[in-house]
Amino acid sequence: MPFHLIAFDADDTLWVNEPLYRAAEEELERLLAPFLGDAVLTKRLYERERHNLALFGYGAKAFMLSMIETAIELSEGRITGSEIQRIIDTGKGMLQTPIRLLPHVEPTLDRLAEHHRLMLLTKGDLFDQESKLARSGLARYFAHVEIVSEKHPSVYRSLLDKYAVEPSRFLMVGNSLKSDVLPVIEAGGHAVHIPYHTTWIHEHVDDVTPFRDAFTTLEHIGEVPAYLDRMRAALR
Amino acid sequence: MPFHLIAFDADDTLWVNEPLYRAAEEELERLLAPFLGDAVLTKRLYERERHNLALFGYGAKAFMLSMIETAIELSEGRITGSEIQRIIDTGKGMLQTPIRLLPHVEPTLDRLAEHHRLMLLTKGDLFDQESKLARSGLARYFAHVEIVSEKHPSVYRSLLDKYAVEPSRFLMVGNSLKSDVLPVIEAGGHAVHIPYHTTWIHEHVDDVTPFRDAFTTLEHIGEVPAYLDRMRAALR
Repeated sequence: MPFHLIAFDADDTLWVNEPLYRAAEEELERLLAPFLGDAVLTKRLYERERHNLALFGYGAKAFMLSMIETAIELSEGRITGSEIQRIIDTGKGMLQTPIRLLPHVEPTLDRLAEHHRLMLLTKGDLFDQESKLARSGLARYFAHVEIVSEKHPSVYRSLLDKYAVEPSRFLMVGNSLKSDVLPVIEAGGHAVHIPYHTTWIHEHVDDVTPFRDAFTTLEHIGEVPAYLDRMRAALR
Repeated sequence: MPFHLIAFDADDTLWVNEPLYRAAEEELERLLAPFLGDAVLTKRLYERERHNLALFGYGAKAFMLSMIETAIELSEGRITGSEIQRIIDTGKGMLQTPIRLLPHVEPTLDRLAEHHRLMLLTKGDLFDQESKLARSGLARYFAHVEIVSEKHPSVYRSLLDKYAVEPSRFLMVGNSLKSDVLPVIEAGGHAVHIPYHTTWIHEHVDDVTPFRDAFTTLEHIGEVPAYLDRMRAALR
């Protein structure tokens, strides 16, 4: 067994997430049309989110509050309570949308869980992520669930410590170079990158060229078992 | 050593929390005075919070969103964006208030950490609680930190499992009978109740008479070491 612990990111690795945020943003854009003028909503909303990150962290509730503040700012306070209720209702809709699993997720986890210790390792809002996991029906495949507020190298290190796993025996699978790949490499672990078509600008990485040989990119999660076979053969 | 793991609740056990929520509610009451009529804000806000709990969970961001929705409801949508910004600013103020430790907390943790494995075990918003712990300066006393979305008996059981601690060797210390005491007893552990003068209505328990002999009530956390001495003598 090349790895003693295989961890999976959740949002946009196991299930659709970012498109829900972008759809909410489009609804906000329609609501704010009378106030927008030359302002670019995506830019203003992201500035507000980034500004609020140190106070609110990640997740849907933080996003709702940032949408509300952006609406107040762009309307110079003229937006009404009823319109703000529509923003809250959009956010509540996000929290209740059925979970759409990405292709190959369930059979792959089912197969891997037979012979590997799997972990769900996601950042974001605790309540939100636990609720998504419960609704996803995937909880039974994971021996461990860890929801963290940031995915920094130090966070990976202390998790590996807690679970007594050598970094070289740890594999992380996820869609974010910034959160799932680069910090894991820095912590001495292995990473598989599975790009997703939509990535939040906050997760963008300028240039990964220096790390290009340190991780593997796969097209979808269904390719993970073959990757493990290759690693097993290479490490034999 | 009578206990292999001693866990402490955080809000209103280690530091002041509920009074911040009540102060925010008072600010909201002033803001909503023109719309209140016969409505009792405390009641309406709590109904809204309870209704939102299944979607939002606990914590300051959920509270902010419930304050906003209550303001929209009570004003029948007439509240302005600028007024809602004041509610958000109140919430942001809560998130930045310096942490006020309760009496005896720091010396007691310092003393206990020498010979015991201590855990911070709190429910609520992950980001919010981590931020409070960092600002409290108490992180160094805790071998483990667990932030959970609910404190049900099953949650205690799976935590004790994860840390390989026998329930009879586990002690929980906290201010909430509903979250820190009764579910721990149900899971087979020991509990110390340290009442706090203000308790959120959601944490109220109607009648604890049947459990009266199953837990110990102390006046403040500084009495925990003497309680441990008594337990040690009793179990000798």
